[in-house]
Formats: sequence, structure tokens, C-alpha cells
Amino acid sequence: MNFGSDNCGPAPSEIIASIVEANKGYQSSYGSDSLMDEVKSHFKNLFEHPDLSVYLVATGTAANALSLACICPPWGTIFCHQESHIQVDECGAPEFFSGGAKLTLLEGHHGKIDPIKLSQTVANTGVLGVHNVQKGALALTNTTELGTVYTLAELNELTSIAKNNHIQTHLDGARFANALIKLGCSPADLSWKAGVDILTFGGTKNGLLGVEAVVIFDPKLAWEFELRRKRAGHLFSKHRYLSAQMLRYLSDGLWVRLAEKANKLQESWPTDWRQTPAQKSSIPLMPI
Amino acid sequence: MNFGSDNCGPAPSEIIASIVEANKGYQSSYGSDSLMDEVKSHFKNLFEHPDLSVYLVATGTAANALSLACICPPWGTIFCHQESHIQVDECGAPEFFSGGAKLTLLEGHHGKIDPIKLSQTVANTGVLGVHNVQKGALALTNTTELGTVYTLAELNELTSIAKNNHIQTHLDGARFANALIKLGCSPADLSWKAGVDILTFGGTKNGLLGVEAVVIFDPKLAWEFELRRKRAGHLFSKHRYLSAQMLRYLSDGLWVRLAEKANKLQESWPTDWRQTPAQKSSIPLMPI
Amino acid sequence: MNFGSDNCGPAPSEIIASIVEANKGYQSSYGSDSLMDEVKSHFKNLFEHPDLSVYLVATGTAANALSLACICPPWGTIFCHQESHIQVDECGAPEFFSGGAKLTLLEGHHGKIDPIKLSQTVANTGVLGVHNVQKGALALTNTTELGTVYTLAELNELTSIAKNNHIQTHLDGARFANALIKLGCSPADLSWKAGVDILTFGGTKNGLLGVEAVVIFDPKLAWEFELRRKRAGHLFSKHRYLSAQMLRYLSDGLWVRLAEKANKLQESWPTDWRQTPAQKSSIPLMPI
Amino acid sequence: MNFGSDNCGPAPSEIIASIVEANKGYQSSYGSDSLMDEVKSHFKNLFEHPDLSVYLVATGTAANALSLACICPPWGTIFCHQESHIQVDECGAPEFFSGGAKLTLLEGHHGKIDPIKLSQTVANTGVLGVHNVQKGALALTNTTELGTVYTLAELNELTSIAKNNHIQTHLDGARFANALIKLGCSPADLSWKAGVDILTFGGTKNGLLGVEAVVIFDPKLAWEFELRRKRAGHLFSKHRYLSAQMLRYLSDGLWVRLAEKANKLQESWPTDWRQTPAQKSSIPLMPI
Repeated sequence: MNFGSDNCGPAPSEIIASIVEANKGYQSSYGSDSLMDEVKSHFKNLFEHPDLSVYLVATGTAANALSLACICPPWGTIFCHQESHIQVDECGAPEFFSGGAKLTLLEGHHGKIDPIKLSQTVANTGVLGVHNVQKGALALTNTTELGTVYTLAELNELTSIAKNNHIQTHLDGARFANALIKLGCSPADLSWKAGVDILTFGGTKNGLLGVEAVVIFDPKLAWEFELRRKRAGHLFSKHRYLSAQMLRYLSDGLWVRLAEKANKLQESWPTDWRQTPAQKSSIPLMPI
Repeated sequence: MNFGSDNCGPAPSEIIASIVEANKGYQSSYGSDSLMDEVKSHFKNLFEHPDLSVYLVATGTAANALSLACICPPWGTIFCHQESHIQVDECGAPEFFSGGAKLTLLEGHHGKIDPIKLSQTVANTGVLGVHNVQKGALALTNTTELGTVYTLAELNELTSIAKNNHIQTHLDGARFANALIKLGCSPADLSWKAGVDILTFGGTKNGLLGVEAVVIFDPKLAWEFELRRKRAGHLFSKHRYLSAQMLRYLSDGLWVRLAEKANKLQESWPTDWRQTPAQKSSIPLMPI
Repeated sequence: MNFGSDNCGPAPSEIIASIVEANKGYQSSYGSDSLMDEVKSHFKNLFEHPDLSVYLVATGTAANALSLACICPPWGTIFCHQESHIQVDECGAPEFFSGGAKLTLLEGHHGKIDPIKLSQTVANTGVLGVHNVQKGALALTNTTELGTVYTLAELNELTSIAKNNHIQTHLDGARFANALIKLGCSPADLSWKAGVDILTFGGTKNGLLGVEAVVIFDPKLAWEFELRRKRAGHLFSKHRYLSAQMLRYLSDGLWVRLAEKANKLQESWPTDWRQTPAQKSSIPLMPI
Repeated sequence: MNFGSDNCGPAPSEIIASIVEANKGYQSSYGSDSLMDEVKSHFKNLFEHPDLSVYLVATGTAANALSLACICPPWGTIFCHQESHIQVDECGAPEFFSGGAKLTLLEGHHGKIDPIKLSQTVANTGVLGVHNVQKGALALTNTTELGTVYTLAELNELTSIAKNNHIQTHLDGARFANALIKLGCSPADLSWKAGVDILTFGGTKNGLLGVEAVVIFDPKLAWEFELRRKRAGHLFSKHRYLSAQMLRYLSDGLWVRLAEKANKLQESWPTDWRQTPAQKSSIPLMPI
């Protein structure tokens, strides 16, 4: 058994097959392909939300940073866990995409933000008016960077604090599927019904070659996201190869089966597998 | 025959096969895969330049904007043709990546910068010291956005103006292969020997699914490029799928054969196929 | 007679006296001084607009760039004259403050934008959707950089084009007073009644030591302006010294008398005083 | 006695007199005034450093943020105390000016960075290569935001850690004079001899209307600082009014006498005057 990260193993044969299939015939470019139309329908059904928008990018860092830039102004601060991927592993991408927003780091056991800490910190932010950065956005991760999972009640508590302070919430769902399975709830429950405004729905850590979907539940954010994506070089001309993977992933429950397999593997790991930052960076959450 | 752009047609079977092949076994992530080692060797041989660095990204906009940000400071201006892709088709990506550099637009017939215009404009830039933006970088495209080709003499004349003014040159080679064939010269002739410091070596418009190589001839730029790439979300975790395509593309002259085929098709087009901006945006340079 | 620019001569004795006076006693800091309350009242009366907001900064570049950043997103383009101060003399400040907006340069005789050119250019902007930068803002200057003046009809024609295209207009009024006198109209006529959304009301080129007022007619922009001002280091702790100058300037018509004097001097200049860029940079519009 | 901050009281009569005097006759603009030449000489003598450069701006936020942007790249992190002005009171100015650098917050008693914490934190920064932000800059404040003073030994310990890690040090000396007096050392001792590369030499909190000097000990940073200053709208056309104040301030020891007076007042304050953040923001360090 190989304990390298999911980044190192092969993709499922279904995904490769979808690329081979997508290569046949002609398709519109830049996201106007018919496969993407199907992807959109899937997401609207899956999330029980007819007004959502969905866009594909190739990396989690792009998905997260583009999303955060849409909900946090340059003079805002993003409340996030001190071990969150956006703080630790993205070389400052949120700062770059947002035009210089700050990240306010929060503590909490097992990679989960402590709601009391969040509440107090948000309350103390921007109290001196223009002298301080302003309340900007809440950034959560589920499955967290430490492999733990927020319950629905925990999510709702945190996003309620955000809403009460008039800021929006991004959920980094690089491992959304794994959390979903552990909780046994619906995608809607784990996202917009729990107060999430914009979601990184990960595919790459669950079998795709490099495809993440950004699911936007607030229609006002959609056009800005499109412009930011293009301007950042994240709109693919031959978009159909991304669409095809995501479409196959969503079809007949493949994405759920892949996550179930990964969750089972994780349970069998030694309990002390997460001791150092170096080890953490290669968490073998998804050896396929 | 389909006159849609190369963005819409299928990729060559060899490229798809390379992805299937790359999916076997385990590989290091984030560009440390052994396929990328081979890609690096290929580029050093191909360009007769043992000290070059090469990095892969997935879109031409990313390749161009990241490259320009490495050679032009925020207070510099990028001298480019008024019809260049970086000005017309990238939603301001160079401005975003560079931190707000300006683009100074130059005229010239057939998409080629007039050297007299360049010389005069550069000479008039920054003459009032801090009050003006400074000479920043020269940005060329070959094959140009209008399908024409700079000769080696023309390239050398333009890059000499840059060098004499202590600025560096980026070449957008989204269709580098097509120019190479038309000129019958070597890759080295068409790049660093002609004064190019950093090159977008395109693959996407010549058969790849979405892979561009940035070839850096000035070693001082390499580490900064790596940081900018990661920070912009353009470093792929499962990098091997990009490496594999580029490796196959470079092997046994495939990239040259693909470009030869495209060049021949172009010759057979009606002479008036490039009349309006709308048409220009879908130039069928590469119907495979 | 000294033909150096207005930047080089002494300020009127009334202005110096206002600073001496402001130095007495205690005042609130950061713009909460009682002198600023009076300044606000003056502006509301002067511009016949009870809902305007007004803020002071110390340089014209700051006033212009902060204003433009409030009305143009990073992916927008600012339509301006090719000889405008924001393009030629600010070292890329609009690009910096806006997060990388583009400037689209327009021609026009005597420093005035040709409305037909504006209309055509705006119409051709953003036509390919996300591939292009978007219509961002209109930037006018009155008195223009060449010492000419837009009539009210000309202003209205240009701002109507902006409004019809759903973009806002900034007026660089570094020499607003000089235009006002030449036209013999009211401040309201020359600003919001002519379609201006945000105005740089200059003081520095008309006698102040370094004070510009930004007058905001669209209340939605005010809070963002305050945050951008602080974040850019343009909020003064000892704000009362700016307030005092502006208050004295507005009182008993001093600002108008100063501009009248300057306008008369200008008329007596030789007609060929504006031949080279170097000369242009030191236009002696305001020798006091 | 008025316990409002030094921002609220009058400036010394000598400073006002210097403005009145500077208003006579003609002077070159944009920092080319002869008064500034004298200021430069003063700084070179005062700091015993013939190669330093010095520039004036009007606010501490501008001085700090421009300085930090010159020594920290966008992908770097600035190591600073968690209660530092740049973190708490500048609405994200360092992030804005630097193009999105991060601030890494450090603990330490009495507003002083704990050297062990610094050493550990720096050592743990950037260990995963491009995935992390890089070691960027060290930012110190002396007199600190809590009114305490770093000794020379403490400063040297901290800047040595920076040097050993190949990053540069900025010192926020908004209250440099107060620290100098308390330590009884020379300006050179408290700056470049203690490892400081770039210094905010404050005037505003010690009697000036709004003038801070940025003193640059590393000649390589000077031209970039000039460009950044202009681009940010912080270069004054009528620069002589800033020069005059700074010149008077430095002449015949006025700046030292003002700080001595303030230090004495501080000693007489009740010991519990600094208990809450709100109180802290209006520390009456300099009631004149």
C-alpha cells in the first residue's frame, strides 16, 4: 500500500474514459460546451437550488482564492482557522486575488474554529472604524485540514455568527464528499442550508485530474466570479475536458463511491499519522 | 470542414494516449514527477540552452501574465501591439498579475510592431522621472495575433531596442511552432538568440488539452516565477498529466508535424477571412 | 514675473493665517475636527446638494486615484483623454489604487475628449464578454490639462454617454475654479447637474499648500472612499490644518478671486507657451 | 490638563513659524526645494551615514507601508508584533502597498517581540517551498505601541535574526525621539548600527503638522521608494512646506527638546492609563 497523498496515485478509469470520450467531435469553447450544460443541471438538482451558478477551475487554490475575492473587499479580513489551507498552503493566494485582504487566524481543536473565539474576534474587528480592517468573510473547511468534520449544528452556529455580522461564508470543500458521507446528510444541508454562500466543491482530491467546481448560491456573485476567473487565467479554452470529468464524477454516484472508499481507508490508519506539519502536507486521505 | 477555432476540435490521439499512459502507477506531485524531468531535458536540448528553466501552466493567459509580471514592475509599462492578445483578450490579466502595470499600445501593419514607433515611444517613456510610469518590458507575439510572422531580423531589431533601454522581452508563442516552420529556423534562433528573455511556448493551440510551457532563459527569474505560479493557483497537484502531454508533444517531432498541418490549412483559406474583430477572435489557425 | 508653475510660488497670506489660527487650542483628530464640519456645510451649500460627502486629501494624484478606484472595478477600463493627468503624470496611480484597471486613451483636440470617439470606443468595449476588460468609468478634466475648458453642453454630452453605458464619471477639477469662472456657471452646473458622480475639487493649484477636496455626489460611494483613503495613508491625524485651509479658501469667495487672478494672467501669456511636454509639465496657470 | 492625544493639541510655535517663513519667494517643486537639500544634509550628519537617502511623506501609515513594500515582496510575510500599528491601526495599508503580503503576528510582553518566538517563527516560515509565503521582512516599533522601549541589545538580537534569514528590517519610529532620549544613545546606534535598513523617523507625533521622514540606509531601495511614493500620491508638489517643518524640527535640537518634554509628562501619568484598546488608541504620549 502506498501512503503517498491522493495527488500521486492514478485517477479512476471512468475519469480517464470520460476524457477519451470528450475528445470526439466538436464543442464550443470557454465553458459553452454542451457537457457543461449538463454539469449545471446536475448541480442544480444535486444541491436542490435552481438559482445556483457553477464554474470549473483546475486547482483548489484557484477555487478558494477566486471565491474569497468575490465576498471579501481588499480592506476586509477573512476569519479562518490558523491551520486552514488558505493560510498555510496557498502562498498567499487569497491576499493576491482579493487585492490585499487580511486573514485573521482563529484557534480551535481538531482544525475546527471555536465558535466563541469567532464570535469574540468578529465583534472586536473594525471597532475603530476606518483605522481597522473591516469584517470581511468567514472561511470554513469541511472536511477540515486535519481530517475532522464539522457537524451541521457546528456549521450553522458559525455561519450564523457571520450572517449576524453581515459577512458571507465560503466553504472549502476540497473534501466535501468525505464530510458528506460521514454526516449522512444532503449536499444542500451541508452547504446553502447551513449558511454557505459560495462553495469549493472539490474533485481533484477525490479522483479527478485537476477539476474543482465553484458553486455560487448568491446570484449576485456570479458575473464577478466569471470576470475574476478569466482575468486570473483560469478560464480554459478547451473547457470540455474539465466538464467531461466533472460530469462523469457526478453521474451514477461515482463521486460518492470514491469518497466512501477513501473514508474507509482513513479509518484503518494508525492514530498517530498526523504529528508534524511535514506529514500533514501529505495526508493520504485519498489513496485510490 | 469545420471552421471553428482549434479550441473546438479534438486533440490528436497521441496526446490522449499520453494521458492514459500517465495514469499508471504513482508519481510525485506539484511538478516533481519524473515526466517533468524529461520535459526539462527536452527543452534544454531543443533550445540549445542548458541553463533554461521551464514550467507548465494550463492557459495562455496565465503563461503570458505570469511571465510579464516577472519582468515588469508595477510602475512599469509593457510595450505591445495594440492588437496583442494581452491587450485585447485577457480581461486585464497582465495588469492583475503585475500589480497594476500599464500597457503602452503600439501600431504596426499586420499585427507587427513598427520598430520606429517602438523606438520613439520607448524613448519618450519615463522622461519626467517619477511622474511617469517607467520603461517596463517589451511584449511580442510570434506568430502574431493576425497570423503573420516576424522574421528573425525583425525580432532582433525590436529586442535590441529593448536591450538598449534595459528592459526585457517576453514572447507570446501561443503559435510558436507555426512561426518556426514558416521561418525554417531553430527554436534557439527564434527565442533567446533573437533576444527573448522569457517565452510562452504554446501547446494548447497546437493540439494539447490545455498546456503551455513558460521557458525562462534568464535564470534570475525562475524562483520568482515559481512563487507567482503557486500564488496564482496555477501549480497543479497532479502535474504529471500536464507533463505527459508536453512530453509526448515534444517527442519524435509531433509538435512540428501538427503545426505543419495547420500551416498548410491556413494557406488554403480564403484571403479575406480576417476582416472583423469578431471573426478575428475565432481564427481557425489550428483545425486538426 | 516668474514663469515657474503655481507649485513654486507662495500661498496667499490668508491661507497661511488660517493655519496659524487653526493651531490654537484642541481639536478632534482624523477629520472629526469642528472646522471640517464647517467645510462640509460650505460644500453642501456651494453645490446645492444636501446629500454630498466631502473628504480632504493632500495631493491631486491621491484625490483622482482614490476617486477612480471607487467607481471602476479592477477589471474595468477608465476612458480618458490621452493627455490626461491620470495617464501622463501620476506614475500609474489609477492602476495601483484600482487594483489594476486599464486606461483606454481617447483623442480629441485641445485636451478635450471627442464625444464621437468616446461613443464608439465605449460601444466596442467588453463586446466579447469576459475576454475583455469591461466598461469601467469616464474620467474628465476641467479645466483640461491643456488649459482649455469643456462647456456645459460638452460635459453633458460626454457624461450622457457614460450614463447610457451604466458607468460613472469622475471629474478632475484640479483647476475647477478656473473653468467655473470662464463659463460663468454654478458649481452644481459644472458637476452633478452635468452628470459628474465624484469630483476632485482642487485647492493646491489655486493657492493652498496641499489640499484637495473629493466631493462625492453618490452617497453609496462615501464609506468605501473613507476606507480606501485610510488604507492608502491619506487620512491625516492632524486633519484640522487641511480643514482650516479649505475653510478659509471657501469663505468670502477667496477661491474665486484667486482663480480670477490666474485666469487673467493666463490670457496675457504668449500664445506659443505650450509646445513641448517638458513645458507642459510646468504650465504657469497659477502664478500668484 | 488635556489628556487627548498629541494629535489634538497645537504644534510648537517654531514649527508654525517655519511654514510662514517657507512661504516667501519661489522654490522648486516635488522635493527639489533647497530646504530639502538642507534636510538631507542634516540627516546624513545626524545619522553619521553619508549614503543614506531621506524622503518626506505626510502620514505615518504612508511612511510605514511604503517602506515595507520596498523590502517585502507580495509573496513574503512581515514579522511584527500582534499589537503593532501596522497590524492594528492602518486598515491593511501594508497589504495594499505591498501587493498582498501577509503579516505574521508575534507575541511578546509590553509590545516587544519575544526573540525566541521570532526565531522559531521565522525558522518555520516557507519550509514547504512555494506552498508557503516566504520570509519577507521584520517590522519593529520603537518606542513601541505600548510606550515601552527596546534596548539596543534587544534590537540587535532581533535584527540579527532577520539578517541571518536574509530579510531586511523596518523600524517604525513614529516616536523614535522618545526612545532615543530614554536610551541616551545616538540616532545611528538606534537605527543602522542596530541593523535597521529603513526607518520611519516620525515628526507628527512630536510636534509637526504631518511630516514623517523615511530614512533609507540601503541605497538599493531609494529609487523604488521614490516611484512608490509618487504612484501612491504621496509626493507633494509644494514640498517645501514639509521640508521647512522637518528642517526646523532638526535644527538646534528642537526635536529632542520636544521629546524630552513628552517623556517627562508620560512619567507623571497614572500607571493604569493603558488598560483598554480604546484607551490605547489615544495614548497621550505627546501633549505639548
